[in-house]
Amino acid sequence: MHIVCCSDFSLLYNQVLLTSKRFAMNLIEQLCEIFSAEQILNDEESLLHFGTDRSRYKQPDPVAVVFPRSTDEVQALVLLANKIGFALVPSGGRTGLSGGAIAYQQEVVVSFERMNKVLEVNATNRSVRCQAGVITQQLQQVASDHNLLYPVDFASSGSSHIAGNIATNAGGIRVIAYGNTRNWVSGLEVVTGDGKVMRLNQGLAKNATGYDLRHLFIGSEGTLGFITEATMQLAEAPTDLTVLVLAVVDVSALMKVFDAFRLSCQLTAFECFSQRTVDIVCQHMQLEKPLPVDAALYVLIEFDNDSEQKAKAALETFEHCLEQGYVSDGVMSQNTQQAKNLWRYREDISESINSYSPYKNDISVRIADIPAFVISLDTLIAERYTDFESVWYGHIGDGNLHLNILKPDHMEADAFFAACSELNPHVFALVHQLQGSVSAEHGVGIVKRNYLHYSRSEDEISAMRAIKAVFDPKGVMNPGKIFS
Amino acid sequence: MHIVCCSDFSLLYNQVLLTSKRFAMNLIEQLCEIFSAEQILNDEESLLHFGTDRSRYKQPDPVAVVFPRSTDEVQALVLLANKIGFALVPSGGRTGLSGGAIAYQQEVVVSFERMNKVLEVNATNRSVRCQAGVITQQLQQVASDHNLLYPVDFASSGSSHIAGNIATNAGGIRVIAYGNTRNWVSGLEVVTGDGKVMRLNQGLAKNATGYDLRHLFIGSEGTLGFITEATMQLAEAPTDLTVLVLAVVDVSALMKVFDAFRLSCQLTAFECFSQRTVDIVCQHMQLEKPLPVDAALYVLIEFDNDSEQKAKAALETFEHCLEQGYVSDGVMSQNTQQAKNLWRYREDISESINSYSPYKNDISVRIADIPAFVISLDTLIAERYTDFESVWYGHIGDGNLHLNILKPDHMEADAFFAACSELNPHVFALVHQLQGSVSAEHGVGIVKRNYLHYSRSEDEISAMRAIKAVFDPKGVMNPGKIFS
Repeated sequence: MHIVCCSDFSLLYNQVLLTSKRFAMNLIEQLCEIFSAEQILNDEESLLHFGTDRSRYKQPDPVAVVFPRSTDEVQALVLLANKIGFALVPSGGRTGLSGGAIAYQQEVVVSFERMNKVLEVNATNRSVRCQAGVITQQLQQVASDHNLLYPVDFASSGSSHIAGNIATNAGGIRVIAYGNTRNWVSGLEVVTGDGKVMRLNQGLAKNATGYDLRHLFIGSEGTLGFITEATMQLAEAPTDLTVLVLAVVDVSALMKVFDAFRLSCQLTAFECFSQRTVDIVCQHMQLEKPLPVDAALYVLIEFDNDSEQKAKAALETFEHCLEQGYVSDGVMSQNTQQAKNLWRYREDISESINSYSPYKNDISVRIADIPAFVISLDTLIAERYTDFESVWYGHIGDGNLHLNILKPDHMEADAFFAACSELNPHVFALVHQLQGSVSAEHGVGIVKRNYLHYSRSEDEISAMRAIKAVFDPKGVMNPGKIFS
Repeated sequence: MHIVCCSDFSLLYNQVLLTSKRFAMNLIEQLCEIFSAEQILNDEESLLHFGTDRSRYKQPDPVAVVFPRSTDEVQALVLLANKIGFALVPSGGRTGLSGGAIAYQQEVVVSFERMNKVLEVNATNRSVRCQAGVITQQLQQVASDHNLLYPVDFASSGSSHIAGNIATNAGGIRVIAYGNTRNWVSGLEVVTGDGKVMRLNQGLAKNATGYDLRHLFIGSEGTLGFITEATMQLAEAPTDLTVLVLAVVDVSALMKVFDAFRLSCQLTAFECFSQRTVDIVCQHMQLEKPLPVDAALYVLIEFDNDSEQKAKAALETFEHCLEQGYVSDGVMSQNTQQAKNLWRYREDISESINSYSPYKNDISVRIADIPAFVISLDTLIAERYTDFESVWYGHIGDGNLHLNILKPDHMEADAFFAACSELNPHVFALVHQLQGSVSAEHGVGIVKRNYLHYSRSEDEISAMRAIKAVFDPKGVMNPGKIFS
């Protein structure tokens, strides 16, 4: 007789779950003990819809999708998962790009769509307590209704969930001024992998009572436990966000422009993109070009223009950069609509390049290392892949590049992705050499898990595994994500 | 025969270390294998000096003090501690108030005094990489030399070490604008309790590659490992810090003043203190009173007066508060020297009340809960201890109160401290009721370890112990701190 050890769920999977439809039926029966019928879906369409994210890295294959309405229900589910042995995958807005929310091995998907209430707004604390499934834009709106700002913002804020943002420590376009999601989390309620409910930090500004477990859950991609509630802090709303788009002559001038503007203006964004991305965006979105003459690179600079001195300083800095030969031309918004229009050259890139089936990499180095990194990357791709065109853009003020390799028309998708995968070790070796990150803001999920060692040492990875075992001893929480 | 398990150092202590002078001699011999003679001290005076902190909570009793000069030496020491079984206590500026740096059970004290080099300043990254023993003020000076700001500041910044700040996640007077030390750490090099060297995050602004172990070490009080190097981020330097001191009519008006000023000015500090503290400071420091007529409470408000609008907004807000009856009078600095002078009413409190042998408590609640908390505290102390006078002051903009109970002249110190200890459970029960913190910014150390459960659940404490075991399986790093 072959004995299966109960704590080894990967074996349990292979031997029981994957081979047994009866198990799936039994499981759904047991789920019915916790959830009402309308809180469980297992039709094919729902399984495919809720079982994946935007990476579409693996074919989804969950057993069921459940829609808890309370922390108690989430806790009951996790205890059941521990008791009878099945795995759980959290599902938020499914806007992730690393496969962190893909259920591909008969898991139960836990959608937080129905835990979408804003529970409390406190203007004195400048905080909003909300359930996991509140959409980022909803939180931004609540803040705005109180003349405040929830400052973390990115292209998918209209559909991403706040708990998803926390679980991946989402970054976006204003990290240079406001930091990542981590900076705005003052409290978390989590259900750990062994079914405990922990309320961490509870909205305090100062709390020096031992290890800050809140920060361990931030960025843990649902592998330690599920976030059920969060207290988010709000910032002062800016007065008048003004945008400049400048034509930069080359990569080495880029950091000089950055240094000059960061010194003279309080930047809220410093983004960069190439002429090629501008061409693609203009074609795809039918926009006019930002400037009459083409440029090697563009930067988009945003600052809070809250006094006359600020606008003056920005213009003086622009003139200085012009005189020094760092930039060749530029345009500055005169009102909110113009600022929005200029942002489109940056914000619309992701959607516009989709038609080229790009192979995406989200990598970072220390800010000052950007020029050397970009030059090495360009050389690498030019040498190894003469057929491939790479476009990069990104949050240069955070050292964060989105490197996209475009599929040549003549190439089949599979062959293209395989070729790009071969390129990865070379790109990540450059990242490693500069002590950078193989995933700046998209998380590890399953897409990057085999490359984790380029950014984290073996000792660190061992410690992470041991920490996972502390909170999730039976491995029921989003297994296979971050580590294989 | 009684068998001692090698991994149980508390037993090993009792049976070997504490009872054997020969062991101490052997230990020093072994330390000589790592350190030169001038890097080891074991004279009585040095043991007392380096074996304690400002709390003086326990009689220091270390075996020796060592002064490593490199990470390699720290690592060799930790490996030796694991091999032959002795405990290590980190020693920075020894300005702590919770006994986190007291060596009272035959430990080896590890002073970072000689690891005091600033290793690298990068203006583009706005970062300073420095060794553990760099003094906070030294870092502030380096920042200032580059027209930047290291924004974490507090009374002991002239002697505290940067690694000590990180290990306790130090707060101070500008948390409302800049957050705690945690927000400014972009990289850490640590030697873990099992002697591994980990380089965490390495100065990156964005890095979404699994659990952020850096944040676990921040605030861990040297119980997981020792910080040997840190990369600290710098901020924009403010233009003109202007200070107001206002007379506030009562506690309920306090938050109204806070809300009004936070809305109109970008506050860099919002501090509060009572008339009694002003009297004590004025007497002790021989200062004039800040305002002609006494007040119930004072607030000190600081903001960056970088445009005419800002000064105008501050004055208008003051007039609004006057009209509403929240404040009765006020004074505003006209230059840097006047701003410094006004700060003395707040910054000199700690030193001035020392002659009253105060029993200190550093507690926090959510900001909006401050008035209710203060009223409950005052009632509690008035009801239970008619003989005792309490003065409180603190970082109201962070929800952080420093509650000081003054020793009556007629009472012996021991009896007074014993009586205060009896009061603790009642104070902490109030803190617990409001989901506050029993240690806002001073850490747990040994002074607060028995009260940890008022702010952290049993489940959290169990998880913390398990995490401690991951990094320090043999318990050699600062044992007895945070947990008994």
